[in-house]
Amino acid sequence: MADFFAAHRETLNHALQAISARGYWSPYPEMPSGKLYGETAKDDGEAAFKAALNGKFALDQPTDGRWIGAEVSPYGFPLGITYPAAGVEQLVAASEAARPAWAAAPVETRVGVALETLHRLNRRSFELANAVMHTTGQAFLMAFQAGGAHAQDRGLEAVAYAYEELRKIPGAVLWEKPQGKNPPLQLDKTFRAVPRGVALVIGCSTFPTWNSYSGFFASLVTGNSVIVKPHPGAVLPLALTVKIAREVLSEAGFDPNLALLAVDTPEAPIAQTLVERPEVGIVDYTGGPAFGSWLEAHAQGKQLFTEQAGVNSVVLDSTDNFKGLCGNLAFSLSLYTGQMCTAPQNIFVPAGGIETDQGHKSFDEVCQGLSTALDKLLGDADRAAAILGAIQNEATLQRVEDGTRLGEVVHASARVTHPQFEGARMATPLLLKVEAGASEAYEQECFGPIAFVVATQDAEEGLARAAALAKGKGAITAGVHSTDAAFLAKAEQAFAEAGVSLSENLTGQILVNQSAAFSDYHVSGANPAGNACLTDAAFVANRFRVVAVRRPHAA
Amino acid sequence: MADFFAAHRETLNHALQAISARGYWSPYPEMPSGKLYGETAKDDGEAAFKAALNGKFALDQPTDGRWIGAEVSPYGFPLGITYPAAGVEQLVAASEAARPAWAAAPVETRVGVALETLHRLNRRSFELANAVMHTTGQAFLMAFQAGGAHAQDRGLEAVAYAYEELRKIPGAVLWEKPQGKNPPLQLDKTFRAVPRGVALVIGCSTFPTWNSYSGFFASLVTGNSVIVKPHPGAVLPLALTVKIAREVLSEAGFDPNLALLAVDTPEAPIAQTLVERPEVGIVDYTGGPAFGSWLEAHAQGKQLFTEQAGVNSVVLDSTDNFKGLCGNLAFSLSLYTGQMCTAPQNIFVPAGGIETDQGHKSFDEVCQGLSTALDKLLGDADRAAAILGAIQNEATLQRVEDGTRLGEVVHASARVTHPQFEGARMATPLLLKVEAGASEAYEQECFGPIAFVVATQDAEEGLARAAALAKGKGAITAGVHSTDAAFLAKAEQAFAEAGVSLSENLTGQILVNQSAAFSDYHVSGANPAGNACLTDAAFVANRFRVVAVRRPHAA
Repeated sequence: MADFFAAHRETLNHALQAISARGYWSPYPEMPSGKLYGETAKDDGEAAFKAALNGKFALDQPTDGRWIGAEVSPYGFPLGITYPAAGVEQLVAASEAARPAWAAAPVETRVGVALETLHRLNRRSFELANAVMHTTGQAFLMAFQAGGAHAQDRGLEAVAYAYEELRKIPGAVLWEKPQGKNPPLQLDKTFRAVPRGVALVIGCSTFPTWNSYSGFFASLVTGNSVIVKPHPGAVLPLALTVKIAREVLSEAGFDPNLALLAVDTPEAPIAQTLVERPEVGIVDYTGGPAFGSWLEAHAQGKQLFTEQAGVNSVVLDSTDNFKGLCGNLAFSLSLYTGQMCTAPQNIFVPAGGIETDQGHKSFDEVCQGLSTALDKLLGDADRAAAILGAIQNEATLQRVEDGTRLGEVVHASARVTHPQFEGARMATPLLLKVEAGASEAYEQECFGPIAFVVATQDAEEGLARAAALAKGKGAITAGVHSTDAAFLAKAEQAFAEAGVSLSENLTGQILVNQSAAFSDYHVSGANPAGNACLTDAAFVANRFRVVAVRRPHAA
Repeated sequence: MADFFAAHRETLNHALQAISARGYWSPYPEMPSGKLYGETAKDDGEAAFKAALNGKFALDQPTDGRWIGAEVSPYGFPLGITYPAAGVEQLVAASEAARPAWAAAPVETRVGVALETLHRLNRRSFELANAVMHTTGQAFLMAFQAGGAHAQDRGLEAVAYAYEELRKIPGAVLWEKPQGKNPPLQLDKTFRAVPRGVALVIGCSTFPTWNSYSGFFASLVTGNSVIVKPHPGAVLPLALTVKIAREVLSEAGFDPNLALLAVDTPEAPIAQTLVERPEVGIVDYTGGPAFGSWLEAHAQGKQLFTEQAGVNSVVLDSTDNFKGLCGNLAFSLSLYTGQMCTAPQNIFVPAGGIETDQGHKSFDEVCQGLSTALDKLLGDADRAAAILGAIQNEATLQRVEDGTRLGEVVHASARVTHPQFEGARMATPLLLKVEAGASEAYEQECFGPIAFVVATQDAEEGLARAAALAKGKGAITAGVHSTDAAFLAKAEQAFAEAGVSLSENLTGQILVNQSAAFSDYHVSGANPAGNACLTDAAFVANRFRVVAVRRPHAA
């Protein structure tokens, strides 16, 4: 049997170093390059994806005989793939039965299985990219990066955090308490990590892999068995993931039911039933706040990790690069058509305008600058397709159409035709302007390509509103533009108190939306946008507990 | 201003090493010795305690002018001490106002304040011992140890865990992403830990310091402000603690309201109101499951750490030291009159008896052995007083009196007269025998000196019942006696799955009740006895969150 831990030990060591140093690092190349992945990798991946279409997905796991699945590519065609279904009872029983040997295995064995799974996922990044693209609507490059390499980074991070915590636990120690002139009291103690039980991972439709891998790998490595409940609209990327994990688990001599796929339909959802099972000890959830609130009320006594929704803001005070500001923000609003949990929704601008390197810009000139930048960015059809991708859900498109009621249109959302996929569900961002007082319009999350330019009395008011919104409604990102060090310091304090990380004066290639593995603490867990950070010790340290055995020292 | 961090750096380093090695270590001497604490320390401590009686406790903190307090020593006299009271609104406002400067202070500054506070608490261990003795009923030596030195150990542990997590966060890093032949993308990032807000510590009546110091110091060091809500029956030990912390905070240049005492009465309790305040982000609770369940339902979105009740068991299979077994168990049942959360309640014994070094012992002979050991241990009045201490609460005594209904009396509880305090509320343990089927009698926690010898078909049944009870009702400790390695292995597996640590074959000075700082993981957090372990990374890592600021690298 291959020693997976030894095979990937160097990668793990780098990862351990990286989560401590928090500079740039990634072991999984983000460029879909034949030189890096093999000259036939691109074609092989696409071929594998196409071969899966209109068929039964080969996943050899417990089933009650039903085959379900109704995914439709946002690029305009049904996938036609069905997956083996099973009842909650059957899934939980299989998960429970698989766990004891896994929980008893050495930490290094479990870590090795996780690292090998990530390695194989990486080698199949092209196939995963196609799967992510045609379920989420992400453009191919983004699907390759966010759905492939960066998601794998997330998984590796979680493995590193978990290993760091697990290796703290000493196996056996001699406890020896001095008794003055008498012989010391001596106990032999052994410690072991015990898992919480069945870990449930509930995936979302927009980032099925990126948002699930942290929880999936963290739970698995800490000895839990994992059931993955994908969003019915984005099953394939997680089905592939579970399939690969099962192969590695089997090869390592474990019951593959340690990783199970739990498919359901919008008509007969099973997430609640799964959550309520007493065997389920951990729930990782990414999705909307409606189900998130239900979870908070009903997952009592379970470890719950959520990434829900937030209202992200950017505050403009002043800039020394107006063109860069507009271009950068236009990109942030357009990337994946505003469907990132990190995309800004509200841009707070003083009603009196801002000072820039191009002189004073009135409020309307700022609006115009953003609108022009959007047009410029998305003017070319190929480029627009590569940036926007497609809209995952029809409801999002409807929201854009209804959104024009919410303010005065600065930049109208236009339908876009994809160069290759004529049925693709695409639109450019809708940009509205509103007065700060019209807060009912912009203080709710409007998921998708809807953004507001909010006119405030001054930049301070914008900052105060943005920070209050982050604290009250949640935010995953925040941005500020200012040439004034004092204003930046105020912004840093205000957003820190609101529990959100801040990006300052981004005018180049880095977007406020981007969260870098091994460096950024994604989601703070300190405001309603989510109760956990995906990338810290707290994310893993409670997925297991420690029990000891102590006995008199055998002399 | 003194550099508290530097002054105690060596202690901290030892503590960091100790939580990793988990052998024996303690910086705070547990012997109430004049050589260690100063020849006048004992008299000084007693004098300070007596001076506090029948007066207003000098605590210079916000108050609405009310003075409340009605503590009564379990040794038979009212303390007559009142404490300054304040409304919840006033307390929370003062706590909130104090925090920003504290949260912004360097980690080492906060750690230094905590270490100096612990140092001063240690120097006043005799005074604290008197305070703990005359609120909890613990005998003096135990009060000195569990209420003084060992509680200080708990605090130091928490500081060490918190420091370990906090120092992982890099202050500033350069994030530099290669771009092939182009210049790298560069961001300057700074990270800071932000606190959760106001941390509430809810103390219990039996171990006011030992059970509160972990949460108190963990929250304080991670940048939160802390409000301590003592049990109305055991205020003085925590009032002294808060007073000393406030002195150190002031000397270090911080608002002393970072540590506040919130006194209340049984008639007008304020814990719920405090918990429900949105400013409160953390709740540490030790106490009964009734309020614990309320907390689990109502502290949503807050970090909740509980130590509630459990039903601890010892399973007898066989022994090579029957006398030692009986003596050790008798001590476990008697120490502090069974009022420890770690004391065993149920002793599962095969109905057919057990094999011992004295030959086969029938079930009744085992009962008799335990009863005789209790009589022997508690036959001398001075020794009985030193072991039993007094009973904190009148209701516990009533429970003992009512308890005789629950089974056949093996050892009757007898009232005991204290050699010095004639009004002391004292009693010896009640030991009952029951059939395993009479589970309604022994499957509930009977807090205090009530224990059951439960007759099972065989040792396997005892093990199964004990483990199921731990898993279903919670347990903080478990014990087993067996000369059979295979049975011990089964017990280890069963109790590990129930999430409880196991002590094997204790026949000497170590009791199943004892939990050693820096070594034992006190409370597992893996069964209903509590949702957290007091001594691991998970206990501290979520008391703060990390937020970042990132900006283009200044070339």
